Amino acid sequence: MTREGDAKTSAFAVETLGERRHPSPLRLSTTHGDSIADFTNDEATILCDPTSLERAGRGGQTWAPGSRFELAGPRPHNYFRGEDVTAAIVTCGGLCPGLNSVIRGLVHQLWFGYGVRRILGVRYGFRGLGQNALEPMKLDPTAVRHIHRLGGTILGSSRGPLPASEMVDSLQRLGVNVFFCVGGDGTMRGCEAIHREVKARGAKIAVLGIPKTIDNDIPYVERTFGYLTAVSIAEQAISAAHVEAESAYNGIGVVKLMGRHSGYISAAATLASRDVNLVLVPELPFELDGPDGVIAYMRQRLTARDHAVVVVAEGAGQHLLDASGDTDASGNKRLADIGRYLRDRFKRDLAELDVTVKYIDPSYIIRAAPANAADAIFCGQLAEDAVHAAMAGKTGMVLGLWHDRFTHVPLAAVIASQKRLDLDGSFWRNVMDSTGQPALLGADLTAASARA
Amino acid sequence: MTREGDAKTSAFAVETLGERRHPSPLRLSTTHGDSIADFTNDEATILCDPTSLERAGRGGQTWAPGSRFELAGPRPHNYFRGEDVTAAIVTCGGLCPGLNSVIRGLVHQLWFGYGVRRILGVRYGFRGLGQNALEPMKLDPTAVRHIHRLGGTILGSSRGPLPASEMVDSLQRLGVNVFFCVGGDGTMRGCEAIHREVKARGAKIAVLGIPKTIDNDIPYVERTFGYLTAVSIAEQAISAAHVEAESAYNGIGVVKLMGRHSGYISAAATLASRDVNLVLVPELPFELDGPDGVIAYMRQRLTARDHAVVVVAEGAGQHLLDASGDTDASGNKRLADIGRYLRDRFKRDLAELDVTVKYIDPSYIIRAAPANAADAIFCGQLAEDAVHAAMAGKTGMVLGLWHDRFTHVPLAAVIASQKRLDLDGSFWRNVMDSTGQPALLGADLTAASARA
Amino acid sequence: MTREGDAKTSAFAVETLGERRHPSPLRLSTTHGDSIADFTNDEATILCDPTSLERAGRGGQTWAPGSRFELAGPRPHNYFRGEDVTAAIVTCGGLCPGLNSVIRGLVHQLWFGYGVRRILGVRYGFRGLGQNALEPMKLDPTAVRHIHRLGGTILGSSRGPLPASEMVDSLQRLGVNVFFCVGGDGTMRGCEAIHREVKARGAKIAVLGIPKTIDNDIPYVERTFGYLTAVSIAEQAISAAHVEAESAYNGIGVVKLMGRHSGYISAAATLASRDVNLVLVPELPFELDGPDGVIAYMRQRLTARDHAVVVVAEGAGQHLLDASGDTDASGNKRLADIGRYLRDRFKRDLAELDVTVKYIDPSYIIRAAPANAADAIFCGQLAEDAVHAAMAGKTGMVLGLWHDRFTHVPLAAVIASQKRLDLDGSFWRNVMDSTGQPALLGADLTAASARA
Amino acid sequence: MTREGDAKTSAFAVETLGERRHPSPLRLSTTHGDSIADFTNDEATILCDPTSLERAGRGGQTWAPGSRFELAGPRPHNYFRGEDVTAAIVTCGGLCPGLNSVIRGLVHQLWFGYGVRRILGVRYGFRGLGQNALEPMKLDPTAVRHIHRLGGTILGSSRGPLPASEMVDSLQRLGVNVFFCVGGDGTMRGCEAIHREVKARGAKIAVLGIPKTIDNDIPYVERTFGYLTAVSIAEQAISAAHVEAESAYNGIGVVKLMGRHSGYISAAATLASRDVNLVLVPELPFELDGPDGVIAYMRQRLTARDHAVVVVAEGAGQHLLDASGDTDASGNKRLADIGRYLRDRFKRDLAELDVTVKYIDPSYIIRAAPANAADAIFCGQLAEDAVHAAMAGKTGMVLGLWHDRFTHVPLAAVIASQKRLDLDGSFWRNVMDSTGQPALLGADLTAASARA
Repeated sequence: MTREGDAKTSAFAVETLGERRHPSPLRLSTTHGDSIADFTNDEATILCDPTSLERAGRGGQTWAPGSRFELAGPRPHNYFRGEDVTAAIVTCGGLCPGLNSVIRGLVHQLWFGYGVRRILGVRYGFRGLGQNALEPMKLDPTAVRHIHRLGGTILGSSRGPLPASEMVDSLQRLGVNVFFCVGGDGTMRGCEAIHREVKARGAKIAVLGIPKTIDNDIPYVERTFGYLTAVSIAEQAISAAHVEAESAYNGIGVVKLMGRHSGYISAAATLASRDVNLVLVPELPFELDGPDGVIAYMRQRLTARDHAVVVVAEGAGQHLLDASGDTDASGNKRLADIGRYLRDRFKRDLAELDVTVKYIDPSYIIRAAPANAADAIFCGQLAEDAVHAAMAGKTGMVLGLWHDRFTHVPLAAVIASQKRLDLDGSFWRNVMDSTGQPALLGADLTAASARA
Repeated sequence: MTREGDAKTSAFAVETLGERRHPSPLRLSTTHGDSIADFTNDEATILCDPTSLERAGRGGQTWAPGSRFELAGPRPHNYFRGEDVTAAIVTCGGLCPGLNSVIRGLVHQLWFGYGVRRILGVRYGFRGLGQNALEPMKLDPTAVRHIHRLGGTILGSSRGPLPASEMVDSLQRLGVNVFFCVGGDGTMRGCEAIHREVKARGAKIAVLGIPKTIDNDIPYVERTFGYLTAVSIAEQAISAAHVEAESAYNGIGVVKLMGRHSGYISAAATLASRDVNLVLVPELPFELDGPDGVIAYMRQRLTARDHAVVVVAEGAGQHLLDASGDTDASGNKRLADIGRYLRDRFKRDLAELDVTVKYIDPSYIIRAAPANAADAIFCGQLAEDAVHAAMAGKTGMVLGLWHDRFTHVPLAAVIASQKRLDLDGSFWRNVMDSTGQPALLGADLTAASARA
Repeated sequence: MTREGDAKTSAFAVETLGERRHPSPLRLSTTHGDSIADFTNDEATILCDPTSLERAGRGGQTWAPGSRFELAGPRPHNYFRGEDVTAAIVTCGGLCPGLNSVIRGLVHQLWFGYGVRRILGVRYGFRGLGQNALEPMKLDPTAVRHIHRLGGTILGSSRGPLPASEMVDSLQRLGVNVFFCVGGDGTMRGCEAIHREVKARGAKIAVLGIPKTIDNDIPYVERTFGYLTAVSIAEQAISAAHVEAESAYNGIGVVKLMGRHSGYISAAATLASRDVNLVLVPELPFELDGPDGVIAYMRQRLTARDHAVVVVAEGAGQHLLDASGDTDASGNKRLADIGRYLRDRFKRDLAELDVTVKYIDPSYIIRAAPANAADAIFCGQLAEDAVHAAMAGKTGMVLGLWHDRFTHVPLAAVIASQKRLDLDGSFWRNVMDSTGQPALLGADLTAASARA
Repeated sequence: MTREGDAKTSAFAVETLGERRHPSPLRLSTTHGDSIADFTNDEATILCDPTSLERAGRGGQTWAPGSRFELAGPRPHNYFRGEDVTAAIVTCGGLCPGLNSVIRGLVHQLWFGYGVRRILGVRYGFRGLGQNALEPMKLDPTAVRHIHRLGGTILGSSRGPLPASEMVDSLQRLGVNVFFCVGGDGTMRGCEAIHREVKARGAKIAVLGIPKTIDNDIPYVERTFGYLTAVSIAEQAISAAHVEAESAYNGIGVVKLMGRHSGYISAAATLASRDVNLVLVPELPFELDGPDGVIAYMRQRLTARDHAVVVVAEGAGQHLLDASGDTDASGNKRLADIGRYLRDRFKRDLAELDVTVKYIDPSYIIRAAPANAADAIFCGQLAEDAVHAAMAGKTGMVLGLWHDRFTHVPLAAVIASQKRLDLDGSFWRNVMDSTGQPALLGADLTAASARA
């Protein structure tokens, strides 16, 4: 019998490669209460929305009432045996704290947990699955011993996909039957294409995505690795901007942070800092001009307090700029530079206050950091559950986190939209409380809102 | 109509001081979708267990099926008006990262959010509510401007309660009608006694607990502030122990961490570090001797790898020691020193391996740290929701976190038990995977388990 | 009798305001060997060059053989009594780690050491000595209690001088007789102008410079405060560049660091990092093009190792650019942006290698940091000796450091030139050893050198 | 002709193995002013005392007037050719930040500078030169690639010497002709014994010491590597002690730091912190009791300010304790635990003030840290000059630093005494200024001093 919201029949049902015949080699328990960790089975699920609000934290995420995600964890029986597995790992797109921790976690769980001995590290992103690519690295516990202390990815990365058929050719040539793909939304689209090609060929390759988005904008995934580290380093840059702002008469510190579509890092770093007076994110409609616009707010703030700190996400205020319409190798639209634009506008429009504007763009320093403690824990857990899922024959899915539990989410779901800050929610309310800025910035917007 | 698990009638129902007549001064919205943050109402709840497991993450926490917690947040109408409020804040017990962030958050939200102008900082814990106590500090935004960068508490702290009647006398003498009490389980018991005394007198004082336990052992509260910071600094101490262990032939690094009843810090720091070979926590039954005991495991580890890192929570293995039976001023049982005991036993019992043992106790360095970015965010949110609850006239409750949502939990519930690591759960499974230690240590235990 | 190089008659002779009639209130000793710290007298000096090389470390610094600097320290008799002193402190120019530590050190030594009770903090640099300036801050130990933990300057800063007569008017109007001026070379020129104006008026104001140059380019001063902190944070930015470079195929990380005229920070951060493959400083003649130029070197490096890290001081390679010839408010020539120029040239000229170039400019993050431990020590010592000098009536001088001893150096000497890296010296040799780059870059240069 | 103080004939003359026939392979210059780094020759020296004081900073160091040290640096001709060299590196004694940076620097300069291809890493200190020792590690640039980011020593370490003849047997058996010995005073004594044994056998082995003493107590060496890192981490522990002290009523924070014979770390960390109220070092005579003793001072401090921070070097106040008279494996006298003794005395003797005492011993956390930026620079320079000296055939010497220049100092000189803080000097004066403690503590001492 299938009840409403059952994970198996819902939009969040996860595919498997086939029957699980092999008892798990893990020495876990099926008895609860014996002080030995338990296996998880496929019936274990978590509600998409455990609150009574039926709208909480959605931000671009939708589901039928009662919908559930499958919980991650080691299964008592597996599709693969360790000795039959050739695993491959690829890291794609921009750097993100924790990539090496994820790689290390995958290698450790494959090697020590399941006895897998053939683990390949694909070089420089999807490019390493091309016809004439560099040889993959051979990965084992010695090769990854110290890498969790280093930022970046020992495998290298790159932007942009190759044709799925060329990549699946390479996977098959290398004999890969378990494939871990670590990357952002572009990468997850490439990963889904690989999954479809694999299915079309009837190949038995488990295709697992591990979402890597420093912006935290993958839907149905509460938090992605690297995000907390990014926030903590972004906070340091804000701190520098605050020092610069306070040390000059009518000093303004402007910090541009990552966030193409979603302002999570900007919002969270603002809360961590408590020194920010204005935060602008892609989700927020705002205007510079007009009696309730950003410039007017800044004038008022400076007059009252002689300095101001502004945080702006790179994707904010794009309507103010003449964007080129170009895209980068990942297919992302090239953004116009809102940070420098704000800097110049502040200099010009607030010149009567004799402002000094200091502009900080800490992006590469943030991206290249190693994982902090919270992310190191998270990366390890994520990697372990990814290996459990793969060994169980799960495929076409990503490892997610939902209400602090690790979950399985279909690739098709996570590439369908982007997660965005909910401006009506409590997190953004905390941010507004912290900056003291008005909820809406811009004459017409406010008017419109007042009418609504 | 009352459905099963309704928050208002359940064991988790929260008391209020009376009718809410005053519209909130906060400029929030009652319309969802207008990009302005929303008020929360008392009907908003979250399920205690949103999974299908009905046992997940309990560790000493129990509830009837379908039970729910009330969600925190600003209410559209309040019991108090800001101009009528005299608020007091007290910090009790051992230091914890984030105390000053919580104080600052309370002061900011009271002052800027609700216009409260009389905010008292009680000096040196409950002692400051004694008959001849030091005068409370006057708190305002200037007084707390930079304190979030500092460890400790600007109010001072102490251990141990006073009689509830003496403390309520002081509150009444000072005219306090909103009382925030930040502390651990002993403090929450004192806070509950104050609440009962207030009720017995028919006084209209909102009594709010903000749970502070670096050990993370407060039940029905997913995570307490300071915990993530503690883990991150504990990880650094483990890193030092690892360096010492590797640099000596058969070197052993032993790190003792906080955790009287619960091994959360030890477990999480182990996961953050990835260099720990054995972790011992209060929840774990283990023996040193015997063919499957700790000493035997260490011998095997050293023989294989020439060094070992051991993390032990202060409350672990108390059955091995002659504890005095004494208690400290907070009423906590004085623990025997398991860290030094292990150090000495390793030196003696592994002498044939010519071991070098280095012992590190980083407790005060951990406790005294300022909040890291994740905790700074958390402390601010907690403080804001505590103020919202108080202004709404909620009383006899603590601010909690549950599945990443802030909640209201009755004081009576949180003092009834202690949260403990679930040795059958996935978090402990991750820890075991990371250390490689056997699930059970000690001949009889293992035998017993095999029989079970 | 005057021997050659005597400090009193040399180019490094320091002026004094007049006779010293007041016994020092400091409880120091005039007996060596009694375990009580000793007073210093004016006969105590240090050789400019204690080596047999007579050219060591000069880099733009010249002196007659046997020249000596006067040693700093508390004198047994002083020109001023504490109760007669009104001291003023001004901080000018760009931020530098340690400014607040210097301010705090001055206040502490004035207050606790000499009983000075009138200490003024001039607001926002020399601007605070204008006719209609903001009131100075009143400084005392409470006001500066925590400031050493904060970056920037609590007094504020600005660029650019006012007319000396206007500034001396202000000093006299405020009754200042001890004036501490913290700033870079532009500021020291302003300070010297104030000193001359004071003398012309026959006023008895001690004018003391404390050299603040994150670039470390003040002559006759071995090391300036903030420099070691700057190097340590610059090293972190280089580390990020290295991670970015290694994680991309033919990745190039370019870091632009401070250093208008002198490459000290770039050179030292390169040595601290050990990951830099090319460092370009203002002292170094180089060309991009040609068979031995920078581009050719980079091509060779990338071909051999697939990635490269480049550090460039902001003042390097200005001959390659069309500089505007403009100057900023401090009178410094506006530099063309060599960092972005290099980035663009690498992208264009190395396009055949499919390079990925990441550019990092960490300047404000470096400047705004609080002093690290080594600089905190240094700032305190510098401030104390500055107060001792002022109380003794020394004037028209700066506090320097020479062969690890604090010294008195005439303002006239330090504004006469700039200290520069000695490309023939051992420090630069260490840098070249670390990067592996050729000593000279550019066909003609090398040819010229080969001819020489 | 030999002038007074000539380095070649003084007590600081350095031995060489023999004639230098091989032109250096380094591409350096013999022309000053050509922007190419210069060779150094043996005539280059630096004065022991460049000041006019002839007593400055001696602290246990003595020399004839005009004495000089030989300057380090690459020589134009060498005794060894790279292809003929087998080098060995050993690290002995307690850990110290920077050990791996020194190892890496030696390997890099040997390999890249001189073409040495046989470089051995002796395992676990002198123990690795025993008859049945573990095989040495083969060292090359790949093996040391990332080690400068790690604390400790990849070679391992141990305490205690072996007979010199056994160690020289091993060196000869391994074919070693260049031997680098990194360690403290005990190790330098062992190193000197090896040097004498080598000479007695007429062997041509260059024996070079690199002084490693976190305590900074090696005479004729201004600063040793690891010291600045140690100070910076010690300062963090003091900061924690300060937080603990301030957060309790009459709270006392006690921090025990390294320093068996010399209080450098304690003194410098005190200056870095600015929060210390009492520092006790081995050089300082003091008593606890009596009207001017430590307890009386603490009582006065607490009464005035309600909290106090105390730093004590491990070797301080040994006369107060019943030391066992034992020695450890390095031959160091086992110290009684002054830190815990002070803690207990404060608790007992200040009980009437209801003190709370928190005791922190951060030693292992300090020792195990990786080098900070300043030490990373220093370690690299030291290692390079050590290799230059060895290739030139210098032997029986250590690499030193003197007035910021690298020097050659005979082993015999550095093992003859210990460097100690000069209580009459300016550094200790700064420390006293910072803590505000009286110069002398203890009734009789003060009386004695007053008489003197």
